[in-house]
Amino acid sequence: MRQKEDFTAQRWKSLRRKMAEAGADALLVTHLPDVRWLCGFTGSNAALAVLPKRAVLFTDGRYTVQARQETRGARVAIAKQSALKEACALLADHARHAAFDPQHTTVADLGLMRSAVQPKIRRGFFVPLQSPLVSTLRMVKDAAELARMERAAKLGCSLYQEIVRRMRSGMTEIALAAELEFLARGMGAEGMSFKTIVASGARSALPHGRATTAQLPRKGFVTLDFGVILNGYCSDMTRTVHMGRASREERAAYDAVLQAQQAAVDAVRPGAACGDVDEAARSVLRKAGLARYFTHSTGHGVGLEIHEQPRLAARQQARLEPGMVITIEPGVYLPGKFGIRIEDMVAVTPSGGRVLTQVAKDWMEMEAGEGRTRAKR
Amino acid sequence: MRQKEDFTAQRWKSLRRKMAEAGADALLVTHLPDVRWLCGFTGSNAALAVLPKRAVLFTDGRYTVQARQETRGARVAIAKQSALKEACALLADHARHAAFDPQHTTVADLGLMRSAVQPKIRRGFFVPLQSPLVSTLRMVKDAAELARMERAAKLGCSLYQEIVRRMRSGMTEIALAAELEFLARGMGAEGMSFKTIVASGARSALPHGRATTAQLPRKGFVTLDFGVILNGYCSDMTRTVHMGRASREERAAYDAVLQAQQAAVDAVRPGAACGDVDEAARSVLRKAGLARYFTHSTGHGVGLEIHEQPRLAARQQARLEPGMVITIEPGVYLPGKFGIRIEDMVAVTPSGGRVLTQVAKDWMEMEAGEGRTRAKR
Repeated sequence: MRQKEDFTAQRWKSLRRKMAEAGADALLVTHLPDVRWLCGFTGSNAALAVLPKRAVLFTDGRYTVQARQETRGARVAIAKQSALKEACALLADHARHAAFDPQHTTVADLGLMRSAVQPKIRRGFFVPLQSPLVSTLRMVKDAAELARMERAAKLGCSLYQEIVRRMRSGMTEIALAAELEFLARGMGAEGMSFKTIVASGARSALPHGRATTAQLPRKGFVTLDFGVILNGYCSDMTRTVHMGRASREERAAYDAVLQAQQAAVDAVRPGAACGDVDEAARSVLRKAGLARYFTHSTGHGVGLEIHEQPRLAARQQARLEPGMVITIEPGVYLPGKFGIRIEDMVAVTPSGGRVLTQVAKDWMEMEAGEGRTRAKR
Repeated sequence: MRQKEDFTAQRWKSLRRKMAEAGADALLVTHLPDVRWLCGFTGSNAALAVLPKRAVLFTDGRYTVQARQETRGARVAIAKQSALKEACALLADHARHAAFDPQHTTVADLGLMRSAVQPKIRRGFFVPLQSPLVSTLRMVKDAAELARMERAAKLGCSLYQEIVRRMRSGMTEIALAAELEFLARGMGAEGMSFKTIVASGARSALPHGRATTAQLPRKGFVTLDFGVILNGYCSDMTRTVHMGRASREERAAYDAVLQAQQAAVDAVRPGAACGDVDEAARSVLRKAGLARYFTHSTGHGVGLEIHEQPRLAARQQARLEPGMVITIEPGVYLPGKFGIRIEDMVAVTPSGGRVLTQVAKDWMEMEAGEGRTRAKR
C-alpha cells in the first residue's frame, strides 16, 4: 500500500509540472486508463477534476466502496447525477479555464461539460490540449510499471510455449484460442489484452483475423497474436509457425519478416525517430520485394492500454525515450495465399532496446504426426 | 449469404428513410457497431460515407480482403492515409452538409473531419445529429437479430447451469471466472461481452467487482454477472447464490431483490416508459427499506454492444417498443456486508416482455460438503 501511494505521488507531481508548463490552471481527466494511472481508481465511470493544489474524483454510487479503497491523491465524491458535470462545476468554481483531452472527449460530452458551467463564463472555459498531458506522461513507464510489464510479457511467453505444444492440425482456431485463454487465467492473468487472433492457412493473410471455426491446416501458417493483462498492464506478442512442410516461397517470406523484425528491434534506442524504426523494418522487406504486402505500421506503445503512444509508422517524427515500451511487429500478407507476422514487446533502455518477450521466434515447422505435432527448428 | 444481404438491405432502407426525415443529405458513420450493423464489416477501422443513392466504406490495408468479403450495401475503398478523412472528402464532394453522431465522435476527430473539407465550405458542413440515427434504429431488433440474441441468452443459461455445479468454497473468484469463460468458448462463444464479474462474500457488495484471487466463502453470497458474444450479439445475466446457511437478513434481502426484479419484468410492455419500469423495481425495494442500497439503474438495452439504448433509469421518458431487448437487473449492496443482484434479458413483444434468460433465479443455498457443493432450493 505504502509503495502504491509513493508511485501515485510521483505521477501527480509530474502531471502538475506539465500543467504548469502548458499554462493549464485546471485539467479535466476522463479517459479511464488516465484516471487509473493517476489515482488508482479502476471503475468504469470517472471524471477527475485536477487543480494545482487538490484533485477530486467524481464517480457514481456503484463505486462508493471501491473508489475509497483504490483512490490515491484525490478526494472521492459520489455524483448525484452526472460525474462529468459535477467535475466541471467544481472546476468552474476554482479556475478560469480548464484543459481537456480532445482525443478522449466526445462532441456530445463537450456539450454536457459546457452545460455544467455558468453561461457568462462558458465561452472559452474548456480549452482542448494541443498535445495530451497524461497520455504523454504514460508513454514513459516508471520502475513499478516496467516490472509489471515485464511480468505480463513473461506470462505471455510461458503461455506461448505451452500452447505451441498443444497445437494440432484439425483443431479449430477457436478451440486453440479458448485453450490459450484458459491457460492464461490459470497462470494468473486478469484477462486478455484483446481478442486472441488465431489465423491459419490462407486466413493468416488477414492481419486481424479473429479465431474462427476454421481448422488448423496440415500444411500452412498459423499466426497467434495475443496478450494478457496482469496487474492492469497489457502484454502483446505474435508468433507465426508453419504446420507441415513449407514451400520455398513461404520459407523465404518468413526469413524476410524475421530479418525485418530484427532490424527494427536493433534500431530501437533513445533518440531514434519512430519513423526510422519503421523504416528499418520496411527497407528489409523492400529489398525482399515484399514491401507492398506489409500493409500496416511497425508497432505502437503499450501499457495500461494495448494501443498507446508512440506510433511506429512511416515518417513519424516522435523520438524514443528510455522507459517507453513498444511493440515491433512487421508482417506480410499475400491475399489468398498466406501471411506472417512476428511481434515482440521492447523496452527502450538508456543503451538501446530490451526485448521483453524472450521466447523463440526462429523458423518453426510442426510435423503432423498421429494426432500430435512436434516442433522442429 | 443471400439472407444476410436481405437483412442488410432492410437496414439501409430504414436508415435512408430516417435520414430523409431528419433532413440529412449525407451521413458519416464511424461507430464500429453501427458500421457492422449497417454493412456487416467487422474490422477495427472504418468510416462509412452514406449518401442518398450510394455508400462507401473506407478502411485500411489490413482489411483489404476482409472488407470485400464482409461488406454489403456499400462500396469498399482502402484509404491511403486516413479512412476518416477520405470519407469526409467524398461527402464534401457530393453533399452540402453531412450529419454525424456527436456521442461517438471525439473533439479531435471532428477537427480531422473538418480538415478534410475545403475551407470555403468547411464552416457548418458537419452537423451533429440531435438524436443518433443508427443507434436509434439498432434499439429495435429484427427477426434475425432476435434469433441471435435468443441463442446468446440460451448459451448464457447453459453456462450458468454448468458453472453452478462446479462452484466450491475455497476456489478463487478468478478460477471460477476462468472455468466459466473456457466453458463458454467450448460451447461456441466468440468471447465474453465484458469481463466476468465474480464477487463473493463481502465483495458481493461491490456492484462491479471483477474476479479477484479472493476465495469463495463457506458462508456468504456469490454474484456471477457475465455474458457471451455469439454471432456478434451479447448476452448479459446475473445470478446470486448463497454458499452455506444464510442469515435472516440475507434471505430477506434476496427475496426483496427477486420481487423487485419480477415486478420490473412484469412492467415491461410496449409503450411503458423506461422510468416506470425502473420505478416498478425501486418501489418494491423502498417498501423493504432497501432502496438506498439500490445504487444503480434498473437496466439497459443490449445487442451488438453490451450497453445500448434505452436506459432504464429513474425518470427516463423513452418508451419501450416491440423488438427491443433490455436487461432488468436491480440489486442491493450493503457496504462491508453483502450484495445481491438478479438480472435477466427481456425482449419486448407486442403483448409484454419475454425473458430470454430462462434459468432458475429462486433462492439457492449451496451446501458445502466434502470438497463439493450441492444446490438446495
